[in-house]
Amino acid sequence: MNAAGPFERIPPGSRFVDLPSPFEFKRGGALHGARVAYETWGELDAAGGNAVLILTGLSPNAHAASHDGDPEPGWWEAMLGPGKPIDSDRWFVICVNTLGSCKGSTGAASIDPATGAPYRLAFPDLSIEDCARAAHAVVRALGIEQLACVIGNSMGGMTALAYLHLHPGAARAHINVSGSAQALPFSIAIRSLQREAIRLDPHWNGGDYDDARYPENGMRIARKLGVVTYRSAMEWDGRFGRVRLDDDTGEDERFGMEFQVESYLEGHAKRFVRSFDPNCYLYLGRAMDWFDLAEYGGGDVMRGLASIRVERALAIGVETDILFPLQQQQQVADGLRAGGCDAEFLALPSPQGHDAFLVDIARFGPAIRGFLDALSH
Amino acid sequence: MNAAGPFERIPPGSRFVDLPSPFEFKRGGALHGARVAYETWGELDAAGGNAVLILTGLSPNAHAASHDGDPEPGWWEAMLGPGKPIDSDRWFVICVNTLGSCKGSTGAASIDPATGAPYRLAFPDLSIEDCARAAHAVVRALGIEQLACVIGNSMGGMTALAYLHLHPGAARAHINVSGSAQALPFSIAIRSLQREAIRLDPHWNGGDYDDARYPENGMRIARKLGVVTYRSAMEWDGRFGRVRLDDDTGEDERFGMEFQVESYLEGHAKRFVRSFDPNCYLYLGRAMDWFDLAEYGGGDVMRGLASIRVERALAIGVETDILFPLQQQQQVADGLRAGGCDAEFLALPSPQGHDAFLVDIARFGPAIRGFLDALSH
Repeated sequence: MNAAGPFERIPPGSRFVDLPSPFEFKRGGALHGARVAYETWGELDAAGGNAVLILTGLSPNAHAASHDGDPEPGWWEAMLGPGKPIDSDRWFVICVNTLGSCKGSTGAASIDPATGAPYRLAFPDLSIEDCARAAHAVVRALGIEQLACVIGNSMGGMTALAYLHLHPGAARAHINVSGSAQALPFSIAIRSLQREAIRLDPHWNGGDYDDARYPENGMRIARKLGVVTYRSAMEWDGRFGRVRLDDDTGEDERFGMEFQVESYLEGHAKRFVRSFDPNCYLYLGRAMDWFDLAEYGGGDVMRGLASIRVERALAIGVETDILFPLQQQQQVADGLRAGGCDAEFLALPSPQGHDAFLVDIARFGPAIRGFLDALSH
Repeated sequence: MNAAGPFERIPPGSRFVDLPSPFEFKRGGALHGARVAYETWGELDAAGGNAVLILTGLSPNAHAASHDGDPEPGWWEAMLGPGKPIDSDRWFVICVNTLGSCKGSTGAASIDPATGAPYRLAFPDLSIEDCARAAHAVVRALGIEQLACVIGNSMGGMTALAYLHLHPGAARAHINVSGSAQALPFSIAIRSLQREAIRLDPHWNGGDYDDARYPENGMRIARKLGVVTYRSAMEWDGRFGRVRLDDDTGEDERFGMEFQVESYLEGHAKRFVRSFDPNCYLYLGRAMDWFDLAEYGGGDVMRGLASIRVERALAIGVETDILFPLQQQQQVADGLRAGGCDAEFLALPSPQGHDAFLVDIARFGPAIRGFLDALSH
């Protein structure tokens, strides 16, 4: 139905749900003819009670794991599938690409049907709450009245809390993975700096770039800064230490790369720069900065959390996370518990920082499996 | 003698010591007609035994505190002076502007006497060890045979260890303030990213910028990234929270500043961008990345530390420091102790991160005073 914009990167197994048109945004403005990309695993049972929704971090697409429609491994391949911690033999699992992304759902890189050209900065001001409402539209379109569980990772942890707040009774359980109920100043500073690096790149050009003039330098800095905050110093001490690059790397410019850690960042930047739309990056990062459940608790984030109605919850985090620090997951558990939820907080000793949930499946897998296994449906 | 380069910022109370000419660098190359800027407080006693040397972090000048030659407050005003923790009624205190800086000592922004133009990237590859040897030249020029104590903050903590290694017996005691014996990958990654932001700025132009075409954007990103790592998330949670800027800040560009923490970073960037030479920033940051006392311990940093001969030492750090984390000061104390030094490690609960020694005088002052008071001379 919709033609893809030049900077959209849509996985081949994507399916789509059309959003109501217009789809009004929390902060004003609306989308017309917008859509949300999703993928699914397993089968919905007759009672429709075994559905699990996964809400992602900033950059992942909806392809969390391989399936018949796309055999490529997904970004959470070890976590999701038959017999895996999120067991598709038992659960009907839906992963939604967030509204505002460039990976299938409508975002700043998508074609505006009113003009036939990408939205770019004409895209309305995106909030996490808009992402949550768009995800809910997918769930309803699939005929699901109530989710067994909504799982949110990182930014998706924010989206999941917004989902539960906006749609009381929409899920019986919630797993918040390295998420938070509000953005705090260190993470706001990091994301602000990432946006500034993109905006200062002359090729960003107020959002009007193309393949030939693309804000590659700004995206390089933004991505490297992201990776620095996604992992942990402790992990890097053991992984890279002070090991230098081989002489034959061809790097001979003044003040160029010398250490393995620099080459690691360079590899991440190269893979990311052209695979994620810069304008979408600006919109999604700012949506995170704006997110604050305290808005729904008279200025008190704990009251905002306590206003959420969900039966059971698990908030997981790791001690080495500097972007969504552990006390934020503790706060999620405490706040939900204050609202009557049977909420558990789990601190894992993973060295991999904020990204641990993507790589430390040995720790995160059993925790998530154990919580899901104990749910009835 | 030397004319200042256009990007040198030399405090009015500076005095100078000429370095031997040529002054050979560790990694090759040499300076001709180079000099080191310094300032002093108090009087050298008849035996010449009460001298204390302060070695600074990356950006400070030699004006650590006010004195008759320059009544302006210095960057460690609350720490140094008559009756203060570093008591100039008792100690003859010398603060040296590091070699490679743009604040009086010869660096990339200084005029190369061979060409009459700034060195820029013709400046030789600077190492921390070169900075230490230049500081030692000042001490010797002042007629001091042995320092009572060498104090090094941050990068200066590295320089102090190099000083002690290169000049056995040159000091009886050492205070290492938020320093380290080697650079680790997280801090290397941060400094590499700062250098990349500067190098990617088209106005950097291979080091050949002027007032009209100056790498302001690269320096903005580099400085903001620095400030993010100099403080701590904990401090910012309490200090800024999610407080927004007043509407009348005149900030109305898309994706511009909204939160107080962003304005705080902006203020730091504005003050810094034109006050520190970009090329000097590249040279000094890389010197820190290169620094590794393990070079003098057969590849083992503890053996490198144990090779240092000093009678007493204090290594201080704070738990919230992410750039020079606390375990690095613990390592300094442990390594010096293994070499026979009476070395103490002190962990302070300051919330201000790496910068705590500049602002948390209530904690750092008594620790430094107590250590100095107990020294004989």
